[in-house]
Amino acid sequence: MQRVILERLGAPAEVVRVEELAEPGAPELNEALVEMVASPIHPADLLTIMGMYASETRLPKTLGKEGVGRVVAVGDHVKHLKAGDLTPVLMPNDGVWQHRYRLNAEHLVALPAGGDPLQYAMAIGNPATALLMLRTIVKLELGDWVLQNAANSAVGQYLIQLAKREGLRTVNVVRREGLASRLHDLGADVVLVDGLDLPQRVAKATGGTGIKLALDAVSGDSSARLSACLAQGGTLCNYGMMSGKSVQVSPAALIGNDISVRGFWVSSAMARMSKEERAKLYGELIPLVVSGALQVRVEATYPLSRVHEALAHASKGERNGKILLIP
Amino acid sequence: MQRVILERLGAPAEVVRVEELAEPGAPELNEALVEMVASPIHPADLLTIMGMYASETRLPKTLGKEGVGRVVAVGDHVKHLKAGDLTPVLMPNDGVWQHRYRLNAEHLVALPAGGDPLQYAMAIGNPATALLMLRTIVKLELGDWVLQNAANSAVGQYLIQLAKREGLRTVNVVRREGLASRLHDLGADVVLVDGLDLPQRVAKATGGTGIKLALDAVSGDSSARLSACLAQGGTLCNYGMMSGKSVQVSPAALIGNDISVRGFWVSSAMARMSKEERAKLYGELIPLVVSGALQVRVEATYPLSRVHEALAHASKGERNGKILLIP
Repeated sequence: MQRVILERLGAPAEVVRVEELAEPGAPELNEALVEMVASPIHPADLLTIMGMYASETRLPKTLGKEGVGRVVAVGDHVKHLKAGDLTPVLMPNDGVWQHRYRLNAEHLVALPAGGDPLQYAMAIGNPATALLMLRTIVKLELGDWVLQNAANSAVGQYLIQLAKREGLRTVNVVRREGLASRLHDLGADVVLVDGLDLPQRVAKATGGTGIKLALDAVSGDSSARLSACLAQGGTLCNYGMMSGKSVQVSPAALIGNDISVRGFWVSSAMARMSKEERAKLYGELIPLVVSGALQVRVEATYPLSRVHEALAHASKGERNGKILLIP
Repeated sequence: MQRVILERLGAPAEVVRVEELAEPGAPELNEALVEMVASPIHPADLLTIMGMYASETRLPKTLGKEGVGRVVAVGDHVKHLKAGDLTPVLMPNDGVWQHRYRLNAEHLVALPAGGDPLQYAMAIGNPATALLMLRTIVKLELGDWVLQNAANSAVGQYLIQLAKREGLRTVNVVRREGLASRLHDLGADVVLVDGLDLPQRVAKATGGTGIKLALDAVSGDSSARLSACLAQGGTLCNYGMMSGKSVQVSPAALIGNDISVRGFWVSSAMARMSKEERAKLYGELIPLVVSGALQVRVEATYPLSRVHEALAHASKGERNGKILLIP
């Protein structure tokens, strides 16, 4: 069997290596033996490989933060899972991109049959990011507007769908023309192409209603433009750095308009939650993924052995969906 | 008599104009006629002239945010002031740089005799900025470290003195060598010259004690370096933009280290305070200025008629003290 390992930091399509290794063996009493079914390449995976992720990377390591697996066998003490079950596999310190692994079964849950395994592979990390940002950063009321950039990203698409369900309205900023119809189909209220006059266009589109929350996955100039769209006392929440630049905010926004800026990291947010709170969150998200009410587009799938092509594809802008690895 | 007016935005030493105008006449029942004694040129005055201040500037306007005046006469209903009293003059929408004015006496307080009028002229704006930032941004405990850049500025110097009185310790970042001894005399615990390895040097100087609050008057790269010195969950508070650049903070600090960023504007903070709270604040600060326990250096004074030279001087870096206008 194979795994994808990282021994030195660098360009994603160049530095990772596919390695043969021995099968993991039978599960211990509280373990499950799980076979990888599918795993998305998240921006966080690319940042990890480049050495730019929020947590320090210890090398060598097996890559992959999230996926869906099929239970092959369980230890004698494991009663809530059985062979054949699909389960989300979420590894904050990576390790998903490997054909089979033994895992502590306590954190695994059986997914309902009948869902799309590719959607299951993305059911936790990005949807939880979107939902927790909508619920935990500022207090929003029904009908409030939320502003986001990178609206066509996976988190962006989940956010549109979840905001709609929460009774919120979204202004969605993208970098190119041609995405509006797809995002409107997901539930977007307003779609705008980023540009210097963004604050004026946002004010016009929202009828001058103040915006309390802007979600920023791009950083750089785009952070400054989002923050210039906020109402007095509003919050800019950064959760990504697609531009590779620092978050920039004008002192005029901070001082004159009392804007505050903070960050959001789903790993850290989920680590602060109790096991019960996490189970409740999964209990909300998974049925939506099963029913197809919550979904993102898939652009391509690659076998683990072609991870270099997959990473090159995932590194390109102007995609229309996620890139996933399948064994 | 004369006043300094602004009719168009631009370079401070070029665009302001000294204008002759008629005397203001006798005070109404609740007014005082006040004669300007001294007024500092604050960075906020320079930003106002350049059109970069936090609040919008309506032109034409008489300039000058703060100063000390002498009461010439009072209206019949004014009992708490008499001719000859010194009083702080604080105008959030400017107007101090004028020989004489009639003011609503309600907001004026008589200063104790015996203090230095030049120090009185700066007794409110900058000291209040320093004290309110220490008290209202995050909860600090005795012995906590506070980090600031522009430590040799007027706010920086007041902050060193006030932090010492509050039982806090300060790490003071400056842009050039040769300032340490002066700042240590004011009560600074650590003085460091800004540079790329600032986070390492701050950690060493503070024994790795986490820093909860960093105060940023510079913006640009300097914001990023300050925020990289903060403990998990720490706050960067921006209150100035001496670099003329946006505030920059890395997503790693925001996302990985849970840093938050906000702004502070003394006009806005004081507008939110009740009259009693403001009186309490003045009651704390003014005795310290009277006794000389709270002071900043004065580099030069200029008459109102030489305001252009004064503004050019105040616009230069590497000063050793404030520039003040005297009639």
